[in-house]
Amino acid sequence: MILWNDRLIPRNEASVDIEDRGYQFGDGIYEVIRVYGGKAFYLTEHLNRLEKSAREIRLPLPWDFGLLAERINQLVDANRLVEGTIYLQVTRGRAPRNHAFPEKTEPVLVAYTTEVPRPEAMLKEGIRTCTHRDIRWLRCDIKSLNLLGAVLAKQEAVEKGCKEAILVRDGTVTEGSSSNVFIVRDGTLYTHPANNLILHGITRSIVLKCAGDEGIPVKEETFSVDDLYAADEAFITGTMVEVCPVIRVDDRKIGDGVPGPVTRRLQKAFDGQIAHQCGQMDGIMGERR
Amino acid sequence: MILWNDRLIPRNEASVDIEDRGYQFGDGIYEVIRVYGGKAFYLTEHLNRLEKSAREIRLPLPWDFGLLAERINQLVDANRLVEGTIYLQVTRGRAPRNHAFPEKTEPVLVAYTTEVPRPEAMLKEGIRTCTHRDIRWLRCDIKSLNLLGAVLAKQEAVEKGCKEAILVRDGTVTEGSSSNVFIVRDGTLYTHPANNLILHGITRSIVLKCAGDEGIPVKEETFSVDDLYAADEAFITGTMVEVCPVIRVDDRKIGDGVPGPVTRRLQKAFDGQIAHQCGQMDGIMGERR
Repeated sequence: MILWNDRLIPRNEASVDIEDRGYQFGDGIYEVIRVYGGKAFYLTEHLNRLEKSAREIRLPLPWDFGLLAERINQLVDANRLVEGTIYLQVTRGRAPRNHAFPEKTEPVLVAYTTEVPRPEAMLKEGIRTCTHRDIRWLRCDIKSLNLLGAVLAKQEAVEKGCKEAILVRDGTVTEGSSSNVFIVRDGTLYTHPANNLILHGITRSIVLKCAGDEGIPVKEETFSVDDLYAADEAFITGTMVEVCPVIRVDDRKIGDGVPGPVTRRLQKAFDGQIAHQCGQMDGIMGERR
Repeated sequence: MILWNDRLIPRNEASVDIEDRGYQFGDGIYEVIRVYGGKAFYLTEHLNRLEKSAREIRLPLPWDFGLLAERINQLVDANRLVEGTIYLQVTRGRAPRNHAFPEKTEPVLVAYTTEVPRPEAMLKEGIRTCTHRDIRWLRCDIKSLNLLGAVLAKQEAVEKGCKEAILVRDGTVTEGSSSNVFIVRDGTLYTHPANNLILHGITRSIVLKCAGDEGIPVKEETFSVDDLYAADEAFITGTMVEVCPVIRVDDRKIGDGVPGPVTRRLQKAFDGQIAHQCGQMDGIMGERR
């Protein structure tokens, strides 16, 4: 089953019109929500961000958010999803093609679930990454469907045997093509400030909270590619990658080329969040170490 | 009828999958082609640009371009279109959602026609415009489906009673939200160079050719907002707007606040192109003056 507006329907009954503004302009927004142990993780925060993205592109959402959360939980239940993701997007709906907003449209919401295991090997061993010029627009804080810049960067990374492209604008590391980037230097955690140049990741903010709880100093400040190369540790965060160690950037090892101790502490704290929210008492990282 | 891949089908049989990469990433490209007197205008140039856009986003197009042109002409005929547009887009097709390209997809091509008269009043009287910060990505030369930056700018312009938003990046006028921008100063025509910051408009290149034929000096050079304000004449070009005089930018009159003589000459030359290609012997501007 999928969620279509506020109704659960069979997937094969869903079809998008060729004049949906999502299809012609990328005129819409989305969220990816993780499900652990059959429960949506930080669902409220994702829906709040969806609302913020909608406000920024001036797309009025007609659905009650309490009802929407209920429908999302029903979708998870209907599909018997235990470990996986909910992908949810909203477009401005169908209208004769014209850049300016139509007088009246009905937004189209689509959500569906996918079974996905936690990325255990990546979490344990860390990943290789490469840098890529950040050519995206100047409102990366909006989680919009205009993702071609990220798509092209990710593809180049994959072709180089990397799991993520780390984007660089004017010498500054902004974020990954689908993640936020953190470095550790002299025991302090650094990440790009939550402004218009990066997505304000939910996992990013969970990690910042965990760092506070753990007594790890945090600076939301820009840093350069050279700072990244020279970092003691680096990791990326995201709904799918959780807190994922970065062990290489381009041809450079980060630190000793293995996941560092601060990263491990934050992975463990993140597992604690999953346990707390979704009732999984043994996080993957906890079990392994 | 619409064109779906290489077949004409009834519009109500067309439906886009929710996991089409066009819908989820804006991972696709498009063209808008004008039809005058039942004939597609500069069709070959549009198809060549489509091929270029596809190459830039590394989307292999499986169709023979001769056959595609034939199908487009059949579409125009089937719909008995005399004055209007063909909208054509190609996406990377359906695949499980993942930023990187799928191993194998079948691109989806959709094209349909719309009856649209020539914009006579705008061509005759000129339009009001306003400036807007250019927040788009750095590959505006690719005619991609990532149009949200242009959409938001156009909408703000419309709300200010303007027909077009003129985009400004770092003090430089790049282009309109769906057009190219030209100014005339001391008899010379200026327009932004055809680099990564603007779309290389077909109408833009027709006008440059017409200017050459008319002996009007042309400089493809950047100019500032102040240069635009102080210009003797200004106009925008585009498939839909043709060669359209700009008589106001923000709260400033351009020149005398009426379409200027160089603009009129280029409109007339453009009418000549329509007459030449599509066999309409009397262009709209020609008839009126």
